[in-house]
Amino acid sequence: MTINKKIVLKKSPEGIPTEGDFELIEEEISTPQKNQFLSRTIHLSLDPYIRGVITGRHIYSEKVNVGDTIVGRTVSEIIESNHPDYKKGEVVLTSNGWQEYGLSDGDGVRKLNDHEGKLSTALGIMGMPGLTAYAGLMVYGEPKKGDVLVVSAASGPVGCMVGQIAQIHGVNVIGIAGSEEKCSAVKEVFGFKDCINYKTEDIDQRIKELCPKGVDIYFDNVGGETLDIMTRNLAYEARIVLCGFMTQYNLSTPPPGPNLGPIVGARATIRGVVVYDHYDKQDEFISKASQWLRDGSIQYLEDEVIGIKNTPAQFCKLMRGENFGKTIVTMQ
Amino acid sequence: MTINKKIVLKKSPEGIPTEGDFELIEEEISTPQKNQFLSRTIHLSLDPYIRGVITGRHIYSEKVNVGDTIVGRTVSEIIESNHPDYKKGEVVLTSNGWQEYGLSDGDGVRKLNDHEGKLSTALGIMGMPGLTAYAGLMVYGEPKKGDVLVVSAASGPVGCMVGQIAQIHGVNVIGIAGSEEKCSAVKEVFGFKDCINYKTEDIDQRIKELCPKGVDIYFDNVGGETLDIMTRNLAYEARIVLCGFMTQYNLSTPPPGPNLGPIVGARATIRGVVVYDHYDKQDEFISKASQWLRDGSIQYLEDEVIGIKNTPAQFCKLMRGENFGKTIVTMQ
Repeated sequence: MTINKKIVLKKSPEGIPTEGDFELIEEEISTPQKNQFLSRTIHLSLDPYIRGVITGRHIYSEKVNVGDTIVGRTVSEIIESNHPDYKKGEVVLTSNGWQEYGLSDGDGVRKLNDHEGKLSTALGIMGMPGLTAYAGLMVYGEPKKGDVLVVSAASGPVGCMVGQIAQIHGVNVIGIAGSEEKCSAVKEVFGFKDCINYKTEDIDQRIKELCPKGVDIYFDNVGGETLDIMTRNLAYEARIVLCGFMTQYNLSTPPPGPNLGPIVGARATIRGVVVYDHYDKQDEFISKASQWLRDGSIQYLEDEVIGIKNTPAQFCKLMRGENFGKTIVTMQ
Repeated sequence: MTINKKIVLKKSPEGIPTEGDFELIEEEISTPQKNQFLSRTIHLSLDPYIRGVITGRHIYSEKVNVGDTIVGRTVSEIIESNHPDYKKGEVVLTSNGWQEYGLSDGDGVRKLNDHEGKLSTALGIMGMPGLTAYAGLMVYGEPKKGDVLVVSAASGPVGCMVGQIAQIHGVNVIGIAGSEEKCSAVKEVFGFKDCINYKTEDIDQRIKELCPKGVDIYFDNVGGETLDIMTRNLAYEARIVLCGFMTQYNLSTPPPGPNLGPIVGARATIRGVVVYDHYDKQDEFISKASQWLRDGSIQYLEDEVIGIKNTPAQFCKLMRGENFGKTIVTMQ
C-alpha cells in the first residue's frame, strides 16, 4: 500500500497565514479510472494567487474549504495511466496541489518531454510566472528601446522575467525589492541598472534620482503605496501594467488605491494582465525563453525546500515576503 | 473715458471658494498696441478647471496670484484693432478672463463668424467642453452600438455632450447627477435612459439594477467615491475615461483613489482626456456638432447670470455643484 501525504486547510487564515492553518494528513493513493492517470509530484509551485483561492477571492478557482487539499501547479511523473494520451514515465505540468500523488483526466496538463533546463523552471520563469511577465510586458507594457521600466517584487519569478525580457528589448530597468540580499541579486544576477530597497529607502526620492525623465512602464506586482508613488513619477504616455497586489492579499477588504489625477496629466494608460488570457502565446514564449536560457540572457533564482511537510512553512514565508526567488517545494 | 470692470483674486481660497476671495475693481481700458486688438466681452465661461488655476495646480496655465485678474474663456466683440488679421466688429473666442474688456495678440483666438446658433454655446457644447466630450468619448471611450455608458456630472456641458454623442452612436446612456432637477433634465432634455441622483440614491445598487451586464464605458467627471463604485461595476474590457475630478478640486491634498484590483478582473483600461491634445479634431467636431444642433440631436442647458459683478457668486455656486447646465456670465 502506497501512502499519499497531503496538506489540507485546517482553518481559514486571518491575515498572513500561519502554519497552524494547515494540516498534514495521510491516505492511501487512489487508482486511476478510465481516462485518468496517477502521477507522483516532483516539484510543487507556491504562488501568491493561492492566498486568494483559499479565501475564495480568486475568480478562476473554486474556494478551498476546510478539509480540502490546497491547490497548486506541479511538475509530476506519471506512474500509472488509464488515459490514452498519457504514458507511464512521462513528466507533465499538472495541478496535483499540495500532495505527493494526484489523479488527472488530462485537463490543463502539458507534457514536458521537450522541456529545456531544470524541470522546476516549468513552474517559474518557463511557466505561468514567465508567461505572465512576457504577456504583461509585451502586450500592455509596449516596450520600446530606450524606455525606462520599473518593476516591483523584482527578485520574484514574474519581476525578474519582466526586467530581463525588457532588457533584451533595449529597455533600462530598475527594480524594487524588500531586502539588501534581494536588491543585490536583482542587480548582479539579473543585471538591472539599479534596485530600490523599499524597506529602507525612500522610493519617491530614489525614482526621481534614477529616472529624472519619468518612468515609461511601471509593472506592478504589489499595489499599495508603491503603486501610488509610481503614478506620480510617470513619463508622458506611460503604461502601468497591473499584475499583482501582494500588499493586499492578506487583507480582508481591499484598501483604497492611488489618486488617479496624475494618470490624466501623464496621458498614461492603466491595464491589468491575467495570464489565462494569453495561453495562445505560450508556445511562442517557451520557444523564446528556451533560447534566452540557453544563451544566458535570462537567469533565475529559486527558493526551494524539500519535503511535503515543509510546504505550509514555505508558503507562510512567501506570504510574509521573505521568499528569495521562485518558491518551490521539491518532494522527497 | 471707458471703464473696465474686472474681478481680481483678493485672497487664495481655502476649500470651496467664497465671494470674499474675490474683488471687483475698476480701471481705464487699455489701448491696443501694434498687433493687438481690444475686445468687449459678451459672454464669460466659468469652468471647474479655473479652481486649479487659482491654486497653481493646473499644469497648462500660470497660477493666479492675489491681485491678478481671474482667467477664463470669453466670447468677445472686437472694438478696436491694430492687428492685421482682426477687424473691428468681428466676434471671437478669446480669453479675456473675468473682465469686461481685454487685449489680445491673437494667440489662441478663434473667429466665430460662422458660428452656428447662440454665441454662448461657443463656450459650452460647441466649445472646449464639447470638444473634451467628443475627443474623450471617441478616442478613449471607443463607443460601440449597444454599449452601456455611464457619465457623472451628467447635466454639465461635458456630461450632457458625452451622453448625447454616445446616444447618436447607438450607446445606452445612464447619467449620474446631484439633484432631482438635474436628473429630470438629463432624462427629459438629453434623453438619457436613466439618471441616478447620487445625493439620495445608492449608486452601486442602482447601477447593478440598470446595468446588469456591467458598464462598458465610464466617463468620469468627478473622481472620489463614484469612481470607486464604478470600478466595481465594469463589463469585460470596459474603458474608464478620466476627465474631471470635481470632488477634489477644493481639497488641499488629493485623496486616495479606487483600489485597482477590479480593473484587472474586468480587463479594463483607464486613460485620461486632456482637451489640449485634441485641437486637431476641433474642425471635425464643430462641423458635426453644428449639424447635430440643427437637426435637434443635441440639446443644452445654460446657467446664466448677467453682469460682471455676479461672477464670483456664480463661480462659487459652480464650485458647490449647484450650477444647472453650462455656467455663463453675460455682460451687461
